[in-house]
Amino acid sequence: MTGPKKGGEAGYLRIATEEAFATVEMLQSFDRVLDGGDPDPGFLSLMGFYMRHKSERATWVFERLKDLGALRIADMDARGIDIQVIGLTSPGPNILDADTATGVTRDANDQLAEACRKHPDRFVGMAAFAAQAPQEAAKEIERAVSSLDMRAAIINSHIQGEYLDAPKFYPVLEAIEAMNVPLYLHPNTPPRAMIGPMLEAGLDGAIFGFGVETGMHALRLITSGVLDRFPKLQVIIGHMGEALPYWMYRLDFMHQAAVKSARYDTMKPLKKGTVSNYLCENFFITNSGMAWEPAVKFAQDVIGKERVLYAMDYPYQCPVEEVVAMDAMEMDIKTKKMFFQENAQRLFKIRL
Amino acid sequence: MTGPKKGGEAGYLRIATEEAFATVEMLQSFDRVLDGGDPDPGFLSLMGFYMRHKSERATWVFERLKDLGALRIADMDARGIDIQVIGLTSPGPNILDADTATGVTRDANDQLAEACRKHPDRFVGMAAFAAQAPQEAAKEIERAVSSLDMRAAIINSHIQGEYLDAPKFYPVLEAIEAMNVPLYLHPNTPPRAMIGPMLEAGLDGAIFGFGVETGMHALRLITSGVLDRFPKLQVIIGHMGEALPYWMYRLDFMHQAAVKSARYDTMKPLKKGTVSNYLCENFFITNSGMAWEPAVKFAQDVIGKERVLYAMDYPYQCPVEEVVAMDAMEMDIKTKKMFFQENAQRLFKIRL
Repeated sequence: MTGPKKGGEAGYLRIATEEAFATVEMLQSFDRVLDGGDPDPGFLSLMGFYMRHKSERATWVFERLKDLGALRIADMDARGIDIQVIGLTSPGPNILDADTATGVTRDANDQLAEACRKHPDRFVGMAAFAAQAPQEAAKEIERAVSSLDMRAAIINSHIQGEYLDAPKFYPVLEAIEAMNVPLYLHPNTPPRAMIGPMLEAGLDGAIFGFGVETGMHALRLITSGVLDRFPKLQVIIGHMGEALPYWMYRLDFMHQAAVKSARYDTMKPLKKGTVSNYLCENFFITNSGMAWEPAVKFAQDVIGKERVLYAMDYPYQCPVEEVVAMDAMEMDIKTKKMFFQENAQRLFKIRL
Repeated sequence: MTGPKKGGEAGYLRIATEEAFATVEMLQSFDRVLDGGDPDPGFLSLMGFYMRHKSERATWVFERLKDLGALRIADMDARGIDIQVIGLTSPGPNILDADTATGVTRDANDQLAEACRKHPDRFVGMAAFAAQAPQEAAKEIERAVSSLDMRAAIINSHIQGEYLDAPKFYPVLEAIEAMNVPLYLHPNTPPRAMIGPMLEAGLDGAIFGFGVETGMHALRLITSGVLDRFPKLQVIIGHMGEALPYWMYRLDFMHQAAVKSARYDTMKPLKKGTVSNYLCENFFITNSGMAWEPAVKFAQDVIGKERVLYAMDYPYQCPVEEVVAMDAMEMDIKTKKMFFQENAQRLFKIRL
């Protein structure tokens, strides 16, 4: 197999928009949680595996998570990735106590900003924040965007079982909206109150639980009315939309039925009417982990070509064959360039 | 809007394959559970709504669930439905103690069989069974198929938090395989160990939780190796495959990664290799609740036209507009006839 063409030879640059890293300081905090009493079961399953399992997969991924330099760039070159949009890996600060989390995110944002300064044509940064301390998080988002040139904020789904639709997190969403950057709603394992039957079957992680957790979180932002409160907020979800594009018809039907019958106190009429209106106007979708032409085209068809972006999911999932498969999609070059390059350029304000 | 053409005038009969009913005896048992101490939260949310809420939706649905005669047939006629394939509504016997559940299912199967005898050209029955008593359930499946002419077995997902991949349920799967009928894996609300964050947001039911619960149950049948043990078993899942067709690429990638790294004791190599091989060889998909051309075509494309069937989801979701929309799909008549009629004829052994 020939490797993918580089640097725009294909007719577009490849901007991968959901790529992960970890700081040593965060991993040290993770170690303390893993060694503490009764760690969150999803965290134990996820980071217990990637940080401590002896398998080739775990060690390969773990080594790359920690690199923001030569190793990462060599991997990008080998796969034809021109630019990575990088965020702090799951679960990020969410698992830590508020003070530790706040310190970890400031430090991580500084380190990521430094790497972006060193490699301005290869790296773009997304700001981590510790939602556990909402006011501090809002300040950190402002600092990261205005002083560190971050182009998005990223959160790894639930915060110890809580979700961003809770009013305590409004200051965070207000800051993100005010700074005019998108929010990347990235997966986490489901919280203790949801993970049980998934964990016992080995389905808690990227194979299934991530999508359940993140799809639900995205839905909560819609059905709770939070996106009516912060109407300019743009939310990015990966993995081809965590199945929400596929569910769109049923989401609309059952949402309308529940609203009309006043079945739930937590589900009121929405300004834009249907769930799908929010998916098409407040969401961007990346294909991280879903290098699959039928799903890419489905999402383009039902959400809109302007809102579907390329992503790799480095270092968790990054075979070069996936780049080749995406290059080979039967799709006009204009649409393909939107997918690989232009939608990301616009959303993350990338100057080439 | 003109109603849909009837009785094959469209070029095909419409066989709706995931239609629900309830017996008075089961509903009386449900009442006792609802009034008992600490009922299952998903059950309380679901049947507490449909049995006791004063909204138009709840009362309309509840009245129709109880009918296996003139009202149902009038509704079918008004919608152009030639045949309904009928099963006991969620959660069926699953919420009841083993003895009550066994009695309720026998009685329900008798009542459904009687209705099918009265309306042999309009109704086809699926056998309920009480998996809580696996040996009794196996006998009831044999009786219902051999003596009551039932054409499938149906279960409403989890059995008080347990799943059909548990060895205790092997006698049930063995009986279904031996009787050469498909198993309809129908939704239920998620169990107590999974419903928390979905319930608090009003997302526990058909809008989202049903799909999570049922998709996970189907996945467990695959990844546990149960379908290697019962290789002839054919499983039907509704709602356009509970999103599993859309997830297929990621399911395969992450399943392979987990198996290769031996991350979970519960996830061993499978005879057919990939998750998608099972989805394409051991599953049928119906479009209950998903009267949406893009999703129907997507599933036909990735699972196979022979394995995608029409369903309505009566009485929970049955606007005539959905029949009209499915009739109007841009699809060759041969494929459309497979979808509406022929795949169901073959799978449920319907003699016209």
